[in-house]
Parts: sequence; C-alpha cells; structure tokens
Amino acid sequence: MTDFSELEDRLARVAVEYAANIQPDQVVIVNCDYGQHGLARAVARHAYRRGARFVDVQYFDPHLKRARIEHAAEETLDYVPPWYGQRVLEVDELAGARISLSGSTSPGLLDDLDPRRLSRDLLPRVKESFEVINRGRVNWLVLPGPTEGWARQVFPDDPEPLARLWEQIAHVCRLDENDPVEAWRERFAVTADVGARLTALRLDAVHFEGPGTDLTVGLFPSSLWENARDRTKRGVEFVANLPSEELTATPDPARTEGVVRSTRPLVLSDGTLIDGIEVRFEEGRAVSVEAETGGDALQGRTSMDEGARRLGEVALVDRDGRIGPLGTVFYDTLIDENAASHLAFGGAYESLVGEEDVGKINRSGLHLDFMIGSDEVDVTGIAADGTRVPVLRGGTWQV
Amino acid sequence: MTDFSELEDRLARVAVEYAANIQPDQVVIVNCDYGQHGLARAVARHAYRRGARFVDVQYFDPHLKRARIEHAAEETLDYVPPWYGQRVLEVDELAGARISLSGSTSPGLLDDLDPRRLSRDLLPRVKESFEVINRGRVNWLVLPGPTEGWARQVFPDDPEPLARLWEQIAHVCRLDENDPVEAWRERFAVTADVGARLTALRLDAVHFEGPGTDLTVGLFPSSLWENARDRTKRGVEFVANLPSEELTATPDPARTEGVVRSTRPLVLSDGTLIDGIEVRFEEGRAVSVEAETGGDALQGRTSMDEGARRLGEVALVDRDGRIGPLGTVFYDTLIDENAASHLAFGGAYESLVGEEDVGKINRSGLHLDFMIGSDEVDVTGIAADGTRVPVLRGGTWQV
Repeated sequence: MTDFSELEDRLARVAVEYAANIQPDQVVIVNCDYGQHGLARAVARHAYRRGARFVDVQYFDPHLKRARIEHAAEETLDYVPPWYGQRVLEVDELAGARISLSGSTSPGLLDDLDPRRLSRDLLPRVKESFEVINRGRVNWLVLPGPTEGWARQVFPDDPEPLARLWEQIAHVCRLDENDPVEAWRERFAVTADVGARLTALRLDAVHFEGPGTDLTVGLFPSSLWENARDRTKRGVEFVANLPSEELTATPDPARTEGVVRSTRPLVLSDGTLIDGIEVRFEEGRAVSVEAETGGDALQGRTSMDEGARRLGEVALVDRDGRIGPLGTVFYDTLIDENAASHLAFGGAYESLVGEEDVGKINRSGLHLDFMIGSDEVDVTGIAADGTRVPVLRGGTWQV
Repeated sequence: MTDFSELEDRLARVAVEYAANIQPDQVVIVNCDYGQHGLARAVARHAYRRGARFVDVQYFDPHLKRARIEHAAEETLDYVPPWYGQRVLEVDELAGARISLSGSTSPGLLDDLDPRRLSRDLLPRVKESFEVINRGRVNWLVLPGPTEGWARQVFPDDPEPLARLWEQIAHVCRLDENDPVEAWRERFAVTADVGARLTALRLDAVHFEGPGTDLTVGLFPSSLWENARDRTKRGVEFVANLPSEELTATPDPARTEGVVRSTRPLVLSDGTLIDGIEVRFEEGRAVSVEAETGGDALQGRTSMDEGARRLGEVALVDRDGRIGPLGTVFYDTLIDENAASHLAFGGAYESLVGEEDVGKINRSGLHLDFMIGSDEVDVTGIAADGTRVPVLRGGTWQV
C-alpha cells in the first residue's frame, strides 16, 4: 500500500498552523475514529511543535458502538459517562482548541442494526459540543481524515481507492498549491466579499426553487452571511472547516415554509447513510421528515428535542469552489456540504446574528446538515419590502 | 495472518464473567493501547451481554506520547488534563468496574528519547488510579492483550510470534482447560490455603537470600497474605490479575534493610525496559537504585514522591504456577511478576492490613513491581521472637 504520510503531514500542518491556528500553551483535543491514527499523530506532532501544552486524541471505535447497540439494554442506550461532557466543557474553560477528523472508517458497519435502538445512542456526538462552540472561546476545526474504508465507499471500483481519495482531498484542501495557506487566504477573500454584499442587502428571507423544492427560509434583520473564517473572543483567528466554500447565515427558526428535497446523500456521525430526504416545513417546524434511505435514523435524530425539528443554518455554495466540479459524492457532510447549498436541523451559530436576535435563534443538541443545492436550484433573496433579488442562478453568484 | 478472534473471545469471556465479574448496570472503563482493539471489542461485547450500562474503551497511543516527548516544552510534560483523573474518580463514585490490558504494542518506540524528559510524563498511568483501588468500590482486572509488536519482542526468532504468544498466554490463563473458570477456582483455592497458613504464622519479616540479594522486609502485625481474589465493599467478588499465581502482603515501609538484585526484566507502562536492578534499603528507604538497563527511567519513577522510594508490596510465587515452567520472559510485569517473587516500590494495598495499620502503609502515586525471586533465592520467615521459618526453598512452599 502506498504511504500517505507525506500528505498527512502536509494536511496536518495546514490544519494546525493555519486553520485551527493552535496557540502556544493551548490544550488541544482531537476527536477521530479508530483507524485515523496517521493523520491524528501528524496533527499532534505539529501541535506540539507549535507549543501546545497537551494534545488529547480520543479514538472513537465504531465497533464498540455496534457491540453496544447489539447487546446493551435499550433503556441504557442514551447514557453518556459524565467525563465525556466534562472534557468538552473543560477545553472551553481552558480556552483550548478542538480538532475533529471527519470521514467514516467503516461505512455500513451499523446499517443492519435496529434503527430505533441506534437513534438513542448519539455518540461520538456529545451534547455539550455545540454549546461550547457558541461560547466562542475555543478555536475549532473539522478536517477530513482519509482511510481505506472511507475510500472504498467513495470509489468502490477503483483499484487504489485510498490513493484516489487522497488525491481529491489534497485538491479540495488546496494541498496541491505551492502555498496552500496563501491559496486559502485568497479563496476566503472572495467569499467574504460576496458575503459582505449579501449581508448589506438585509434580506428578510431566501427562496429555494428547483425539482421537488419550493422553500422560503426566514432570516433575522441582523443576520450576517459569513464564510468559515472565525475568531475567538480573545482574538485567535481560525477556520472552522477545511475544506470550506460556503457562505452561512443563521435563519429565524419560526419562519421556514414549504417543501425541500435533498440533492446529495449525507452520512451521520455513526456512519448511517441518509439519502433522498423530503421535508415539509410549517411556521418553521418540520412537520414531515422522510427519506428514501435511512428515514428511521433521520426521524430519530430530528426527534431528540424541539429544536431538532427547526433550522439552525442556511448556507449557500457557488460552483466556483473546488468540490462541486469533481462530481464526487464523498459520503461525508464536511466535504459534500461544501459542494452545494444546504440547511441544518438543530443548533444555530450565535456569531451570525446581532445581540438583539441571539435570544431567538434555534437551540438544540443536534446540528445536522443536509444538502439542497444544485445548478438546477435557483436561490432568490426576498427583501423586507417583498423585492426579489437573484442570488444564485445555475450555481453562479448574481450579487 | 492467523485469526485470533476465538482466543480473544475466550479470554474476554473469562475476564468479564469470572475475573472482573461485571455486574448488571455497571459502567466499565477499559484501558488499552492502540492496536489492542480485538480483545477490547471482545471485552465490550461480553460486558454488554452481562448487562453493563456503558463500556468506555480508551486507546492509549504511544506514538502520541513519542510526539509529545520529542516536541513539547519540557515544563509541560507532567501536565495531565483534568478529565483523565475525573474519569477514574467517577468510576469509583458510580461503583463501576475497570479492565486494563497489559502488553506493549510497540516495544522500544520510546527507547531513544531523553530519559529525563520521558520520566516527567507518566501517562497512561493516572495518579488517581491507585487511590481508587484502595477505596474498594471498583472491581478491577488487569489481563494481557497480545499484539504483533509485543509478540515479536518476546519471540524475535519465531516465524509466527503472535501465534506462539497467544499459545502461551492461553496456557497461563488456563484457556486450554475445558472449563477455565473451574481451573482458576481450583488454583486460587490452593494459594489461599498457603496464604492462610502464612498469615497464621504472624511473621514479623521475610528474608530473601540469593545471588546479589540479602534483604529483610518488615511486615505489620496485622499483615495478611492473600492471592488475587478480592471483594468490593458491596460484596462483588473479583480477581484483580489474570493470570495470577502470587501471594501478596503489604510491608511496613519503614523496616526494609539490605540489598536486592532483580531476577527478571520489567517494562514500564511507556514501554521502557528496565533490567539488572540493584537496590540498597536503609530503614525502609531505597538509598541506592541502580539498573544495568533503563536506570535513568527507574530513578525518574522512584523519585516522583517520597513513597516511591519505599515498598508497597511483597509477593511470593512458588514454582507450581504455569508461568515459571515456560521459561519465557514476557517483558510484561503482569505475567512476569507471577513467575517469580517480587517487590513493588510505591503505593500499598490497604485491604492487606488490619485497620490499626492502615495509617502506616506506604502511600505514593507510583506502584512499580520488580522481580527478585528465582529457584536460587531462599525465602525465610522471621517471627517476632526471632525464630526463622523456611517459606520457599528451590521455589517450593515449605509451609
């Protein structure tokens, strides 16, 4: 098998030095799957070189989850040991950093399990995570961690699937540039400009229209459109997702109306594949949630609390990013969401609204993105006076 | 490569159902190295089948430790994130269980590192662990977790080292018996009888005499000689070590005198090999600690606190156990200590003395066993009136 350690090292370096922007003396937690050790170790090396005080890598093992779902008593399946949440909360208190690797190491491992039992166990997701992001003290990053299992899912007919997956991930992460960091700075400058213009339009809502989709998503008067660049409260700049091509806003959870059909599959954190989603919203609430594949799991997730049935994110992606043109379905939300405009059920980002609207954003233990954009889906802005402003046509910005 | 999953399943079953004796609704923490996933998953399956509420497996990755020792700032090397200790303390509060897998997955990985830096980082050992054992609420077990790396260290010239290691571990764990649990019950009945007779002698000290060794270890009037069978405060019977052939007592930390030479190598939790130990004790304190191999690491460990220089355990092993006759050096304290009589620097077991002496036993964040027995080392009991009672001659019980 080819050795991918040089690519792992290159990706880890961009992740630590630029995207997560690890600071001297920071405690860093790294969340990944069993099997993603190569990249996790490279991240640790670079973080320690940057002066990290401690790098705590936790390997989540989906085979242990399978054992639990198969054999444990049903009423215990939502139990989470207290130290799982403490780890997340204490990283916040320490003003530490968090790096998560995406990509399922063993796709399909849980597919034959009882979806009702499976939906009670949300691990490796910990409910405190999203709350901590909103406190704004942790510089955090999600980046892909390629493995053989994931590669075989994406390229089942390729004789060297992992080489091909790495090639595409290196491309979308701009590792094939002489200076990947400079390439990212340029791309984020472009999306930041579009975002500033969109924000200046002070849209009251956005309207998505395409095959199976006719959906209006309400916005707050203070809603901002921003890319993945962010800044902690003590001023550490970071990039929350790598790769990232999206412009994101926090919607009004009470004002989504209509129907929407997903345009790409998504994979839950436990590896469950969800595809062919159809949702109907009334007064912001998803009153009907269906999927051709994984419908039970999707309904389980969106039933965990009231906020799980409302929107916490609306994001727009144009066709100029590097992911869309590849035409690859990565079966990984981090990458796939950045190929297409998307929505998320669940918790919203406080940093994308003004203080006057923070109290009205959606709250939930869930944050689940699903892709609804394509070149066939028009996106139109609606101003407070009802004026319609074309935003995306054929995947190209109109603003 | 041969598949060892059946042996893993057999060992995990004895571990969970008999030795650790996992109870319904218990939270179980499992500590192992990255690479020991086969046995860890088998343990989780059997624990969930027994009704465990949650099985929290944490994979310690020695490659991450290497990255830290190589690159982190020296003054940070003894930092441990607060949630490491919380996990151990909360398992106690929950009256949970703990299962640890021994055996280094990557022997020698840290050998070329600066021993001074290495000695500051005690992970995966967590200082709260030994304290929790003494609280007596947790049923705990250490058992071997064979891996390819470990097997190559033990049998470097064998074409199939892992198969050979598994064969020997199956033998010493009595998995080659029709009913391994019954075989263990019988062996523990024998050592319990010898222990009862030794305890009844009310020895004031034991005297070890052999090549390079002339050592007297003082005992408490209330000292008990017990095997690895134990019982939690709420009455859960368990076996703390598998395999185990030893009879253990808690010594008086102020009354060890003389010199002792180790008879077998030991491997620290970070994989460092220590061999050829020579120690001189005066009034219970090790005033000189030397080793032919790994001396710096040994001195580092035994300098962590005052108790690390005094004894917390004296243990006797006869030649009727299954480990000694194999003649194998396992490079793993769990197994090697059960081939030979041994001492331990550091913390002592409260359960092996009467309440009147609990305040006088040794306390330390360390518990480090080293082997001092062989067929050439005579062990003699010394009664309070000075009478000498032969205990072991040529490895055979005299009591």
